[in-house]
Amino acid sequence: MKTPVKNEKELISRIETRLTSRVGGMLRLGIGDDAAILKMRPGWELVLTCDFLLEERHFLLNVGGSSSLDLADAIGWKSLARATSDIAAMGGVPKCFLLSLALPRKLTGRWLDAFLGGMARAARRFGVVVAGGDTTVSEKVIVNVTVAGEVKTGRAITRAGARPGDLICVSGRLGEAQLGLEAMLRWGRQGQQRRGGLRGVMRRAIQKHRYPAPRLALGQFLAEERLVTAMIDTSDGLSTDLGHICEASGVGAWIFAEKIPAVAIPEALRRRGADALELALQGGEDYELLFTVPRKAAKRLPSNHGGVPLTVIGEIAREKKLSLIDRSGSVQTLIIRGWDPFRNN
Amino acid sequence: MKTPVKNEKELISRIETRLTSRVGGMLRLGIGDDAAILKMRPGWELVLTCDFLLEERHFLLNVGGSSSLDLADAIGWKSLARATSDIAAMGGVPKCFLLSLALPRKLTGRWLDAFLGGMARAARRFGVVVAGGDTTVSEKVIVNVTVAGEVKTGRAITRAGARPGDLICVSGRLGEAQLGLEAMLRWGRQGQQRRGGLRGVMRRAIQKHRYPAPRLALGQFLAEERLVTAMIDTSDGLSTDLGHICEASGVGAWIFAEKIPAVAIPEALRRRGADALELALQGGEDYELLFTVPRKAAKRLPSNHGGVPLTVIGEIAREKKLSLIDRSGSVQTLIIRGWDPFRNN
Repeated sequence: MKTPVKNEKELISRIETRLTSRVGGMLRLGIGDDAAILKMRPGWELVLTCDFLLEERHFLLNVGGSSSLDLADAIGWKSLARATSDIAAMGGVPKCFLLSLALPRKLTGRWLDAFLGGMARAARRFGVVVAGGDTTVSEKVIVNVTVAGEVKTGRAITRAGARPGDLICVSGRLGEAQLGLEAMLRWGRQGQQRRGGLRGVMRRAIQKHRYPAPRLALGQFLAEERLVTAMIDTSDGLSTDLGHICEASGVGAWIFAEKIPAVAIPEALRRRGADALELALQGGEDYELLFTVPRKAAKRLPSNHGGVPLTVIGEIAREKKLSLIDRSGSVQTLIIRGWDPFRNN
Repeated sequence: MKTPVKNEKELISRIETRLTSRVGGMLRLGIGDDAAILKMRPGWELVLTCDFLLEERHFLLNVGGSSSLDLADAIGWKSLARATSDIAAMGGVPKCFLLSLALPRKLTGRWLDAFLGGMARAARRFGVVVAGGDTTVSEKVIVNVTVAGEVKTGRAITRAGARPGDLICVSGRLGEAQLGLEAMLRWGRQGQQRRGGLRGVMRRAIQKHRYPAPRLALGQFLAEERLVTAMIDTSDGLSTDLGHICEASGVGAWIFAEKIPAVAIPEALRRRGADALELALQGGEDYELLFTVPRKAAKRLPSNHGGVPLTVIGEIAREKKLSLIDRSGSVQTLIIRGWDPFRNN
């Protein structure tokens, strides 16, 4: 598996070998034909989504201090995690995926092997099998993953549905992935590990940036219990993603700065200007779930789910604007500055 | 619609405006949420496939003599046609698609408008609506289209199923798209139009290269009538695609050179070395259907379907090799030299 492939057939055979492609359950016909065939159970609907992961846009092949094979493993994991997180945000159960992969021929040896290794671990963790895709040669690495899942008819949770008075909740800690990204870009993994005091927090942050874990169990729990009115995953940053829920639902929101479960930043970093609230509000790629809960259902919402903390951070408002209330009680407009590739940042 | 977009929201809004995104039938929730929701009818299965269309690999933004907006229109059409052809090859009915689109910010004005225009015409022709996707900025244009369709349970036609004695049939004319590609690259559209004698054939060839028409009605007819044992679309060239059927079915084949419905090449071009048989055997992107018919069902196979000729070109054999029988009756091994991006061509 260590030398570049000789032809496309060999590439597809490596993909089939490394990624589980077992036919069963929803998947009736998998990789290797013109298309995959999926069978729905009565009473269930199909959830379908796709996401890019592009070299230079979403990742670099080389980051100071990290081996390119370590990075390839993380890129494989993350390609699948991104799209799977969208299934989590609907309350769905992911089942199978299509992998569109374009890469330089010279990366079809050891790099591909590491990439497929990371993707295979993610696939086992998320419970999905590969069902097909497309492969070709390109100068830069291009990945597009389509994930298909299922959800009980009528139980999917969309972005539209938040009502004034609903509580706004979020899972996990926000800003961690962004902190991890910045740490990687500034210091590389090796350099960072030498900075003794930062080790624990920063290692966790880098891990979250590289190996995001879609909140599948939580999303399914919330859908099953009919606890929430709207939901999204925080891929672009809390401010941007809250904006998406509010726009789709035709409402506004206010959130309390001090309630936001922001990443804990070591004192040394804070002195150098790192701002936990800013990271939490604007940092992308945490892949946590942001959702709204009717007040009367709030008492049924646990404080954590499977060890993942759930935190109420604010409330949906009738007036269509986003407000941030700080520690002193003063209100300011929440600036949406999360990730937007087409904005002149 | 003529200036580049200011942010991603505006880009998505242009996509929604230009492409039909109506919810109905199979599509329960369309573009704009974390994922699309599809509902299957009892007795039907889902067919799912995806295909890349990449700048420099599958198309150029500029080809001598053609306006870049004309080309953008064709790229939009072809992105959707490629993946839809895979649904045709299963005997399925396409229903909706996800569009993953990455492009430079400067192309999000008039170029995007033309691209979406071509894609919108293709969508209407093929009967599909957009259901979601992903968008981002990139240096080169990157398109990945995922198409979802339906097929009656158990009626999908795979590549595996051809049996010794089955007749090998193909729709339309082969080599046309390759001839069109070569004409465009050599002369551009303007230059070509000035060459009086070539006009008709070459214009049709260029049209087929730029605006391939998936054989949806034919594929559905063949599946419905249970006429065929195996099927594939000719995207990589007859030799390569026949090889796929034979490998998946564990059989071999022999075909008659003189029966292959090769593109008609004008005398002037033939003198310059163009070879119709070579184009038919090795030229890609015709998106015709190649299928196998049991002998006893052959009399039910019409000579054309909706004006598209159906031609018997050979027979499936037990021995696992591909043979080409020429006009004089001499047999040679069929060389597979169709498109393979990973082979050192």
